[in-house]
Amino acid sequence: MSETSLIFSAQEYRDRIARLQTAMALEGLDALLLSTPADIFYTTGFLTRFWESPARPWFVVVPQAGDPVAVIPTIGAELMGRCWIPQVRTWDAPDPRDDGVSLLAGTLADMVPENGRIGLPMGLETHLRMPLGDFETLRSHLAPRVLTDATASVQRVREIKSEAEITKIRTSCEIAARAFDRVPEFAQAGQPLDAVFRDFQIALLSEGADWVSYVAGGAGADGYGDVISPAGPDPLHVGDVLMLDTGAVREGYFCDFDRNWAIGSASDCARRAHRALWQATEEVMATLRPGHRACDVHEMLCAGLRRHGATPSGGRLGHGLGVTLTEWPSFTPLDTTPLRAGMVLTLEPGCKTRDGRILVHEENIVLRENGVELLSPRAPAELPEILG
Amino acid sequence: MSETSLIFSAQEYRDRIARLQTAMALEGLDALLLSTPADIFYTTGFLTRFWESPARPWFVVVPQAGDPVAVIPTIGAELMGRCWIPQVRTWDAPDPRDDGVSLLAGTLADMVPENGRIGLPMGLETHLRMPLGDFETLRSHLAPRVLTDATASVQRVREIKSEAEITKIRTSCEIAARAFDRVPEFAQAGQPLDAVFRDFQIALLSEGADWVSYVAGGAGADGYGDVISPAGPDPLHVGDVLMLDTGAVREGYFCDFDRNWAIGSASDCARRAHRALWQATEEVMATLRPGHRACDVHEMLCAGLRRHGATPSGGRLGHGLGVTLTEWPSFTPLDTTPLRAGMVLTLEPGCKTRDGRILVHEENIVLRENGVELLSPRAPAELPEILG
Repeated sequence: MSETSLIFSAQEYRDRIARLQTAMALEGLDALLLSTPADIFYTTGFLTRFWESPARPWFVVVPQAGDPVAVIPTIGAELMGRCWIPQVRTWDAPDPRDDGVSLLAGTLADMVPENGRIGLPMGLETHLRMPLGDFETLRSHLAPRVLTDATASVQRVREIKSEAEITKIRTSCEIAARAFDRVPEFAQAGQPLDAVFRDFQIALLSEGADWVSYVAGGAGADGYGDVISPAGPDPLHVGDVLMLDTGAVREGYFCDFDRNWAIGSASDCARRAHRALWQATEEVMATLRPGHRACDVHEMLCAGLRRHGATPSGGRLGHGLGVTLTEWPSFTPLDTTPLRAGMVLTLEPGCKTRDGRILVHEENIVLRENGVELLSPRAPAELPEILG
Repeated sequence: MSETSLIFSAQEYRDRIARLQTAMALEGLDALLLSTPADIFYTTGFLTRFWESPARPWFVVVPQAGDPVAVIPTIGAELMGRCWIPQVRTWDAPDPRDDGVSLLAGTLADMVPENGRIGLPMGLETHLRMPLGDFETLRSHLAPRVLTDATASVQRVREIKSEAEITKIRTSCEIAARAFDRVPEFAQAGQPLDAVFRDFQIALLSEGADWVSYVAGGAGADGYGDVISPAGPDPLHVGDVLMLDTGAVREGYFCDFDRNWAIGSASDCARRAHRALWQATEEVMATLRPGHRACDVHEMLCAGLRRHGATPSGGRLGHGLGVTLTEWPSFTPLDTTPLRAGMVLTLEPGCKTRDGRILVHEENIVLRENGVELLSPRAPAELPEILG
């Protein structure tokens, strides 16, 4: 066990808090209440897989000025004590009488005047990680203080990554790239898909992932039907296209990209689809600039696919990336979020092949003032073949 | 890709829904609204790692009679279509104008009369996995229908496992046990703890885990300071006690148990502590019966530790186990939940050794009418030594 558990310098966290406090001031917020693993890791550096247990709520409160306060179960006191924030208040959770509610209410009441406003994320792509009944109790304890939406304050800050964060994401991408390079070693015709998924996770760990939060994929002739199913025992066949997609984690930061392979020689259909996906991505990477909106990327990818003879498969065609597998904005026709330098994003076009089958392709990038910098080592232009 | 994606027979899910509907009738609920991965997997068999993306909410609605209805993002339609439930309603998520709220409200409004009651889990160890703002919109759409707490309805049903579920948990325990047996191969003095964590995850996958949702642990002379930290690069030293704890997943079901090793010869202090933990667990396994309460287990474990000369370390000393790493009830002094046959539980005593260090021990059991059946192959009575 290390003496500290910071991932980044304390200054990195102070800068984040200062940016949050600037956003809070613009929204007239006296405090910000955070409850999810991502928001708590972002503000404190508190990194643990213990979130897997839904038993206990955890909170960080960011005041208008000064350092945040952690209000957490006692079991986390040792680890949070090694993070940078000086104030950690604890209770013995789970407590069926009062699971941290009065401790949290007291913390907020001390910080926020009775006519004050407390923000918490309530909008798209958020949720509150505490019992709803306890939230209602909290709200009545805090009245007449107003609890209001702070989604934008959090998202506009978190979506711009520091250079230190970009370095972490690049490292996760490099780990995944090395594991993808090893896929031909274990993804032969005849191998059950679930064994391929296991071997891929083993490769990710061997190459340096701390843990593997996400692996998905699919396999089928000229494409796959969906991209979120767990693997079954069906073997790979000659003629299949295999896709593997991963969110591997190193020091709390995700990559999120995929790769495709033909099992045996690639069919013309699969080869053309892969080429169109690759070209559409290439063109967006050449033209994307700060000032484009999220919906523009969707349109650019769809137009590129059509220009290269492919039919877009619909759905979201990319998103933000960082301390969760997917972050906002979303590359859909409806998301008008302006893209800014420092955003880490995925480009994720998909196209239809035949019979409800699709091919998907994904890269991870950081948007710079002068254009796109690739974080995932670029996929090959031609669909690679695993010839056995 | 398989044609169906059921994990269990359709009858297993029908039985679960019937039990939920009985509980709902007792509480006077016209519908039950579920939103978490665990509740949705439990009712439908929908198993995916895509929950790792926080972008989209997902819902299952259980009516007073008849089959549940899934209200989910289009990206899940293919996989949910291979599950047992006939009605799947979809929308293109994420949609910043209306992210499934009106589709969900319409589904509930058709099912529940205006004077009716809709239950959702709002209590201890629950949360609502949808944006809070959308929940408030949903509630106003559905008024005058009442949204009320249904925690007990869900927990009293889910906490009793079917034989098919117990078989799945036993399988996950057996996978972890085989991986624990291989720890001496890679946990030698001088090995960095983070490398040990990676190798342990690789062993879990090699032995058949579909994925590894949780690994934690610690190492130090005569014990460790906390049990939820990620591993750092510090090497194991002769004289350390190493603990590894895992929630490995096979077909959606978790194990959750740990093992300890002395690196080199065990100290008397560590040996005594391990023996006390093992004996206290042994005695509870010999005496626990349906009718005991959760708090009785806490008391029995503490009394056993003291009888064997050890000082309990405080906190929760075990909990339910199944489709999440931890489920209710909690073995704390405050949880009075009656224990019933069919509950799968962890026994997890911890004791202080010295200088704020602790040793912990954990087994997984199922409570039967006539006593305890072990699911995790029993830890050795004596602290095993890794002699290099």
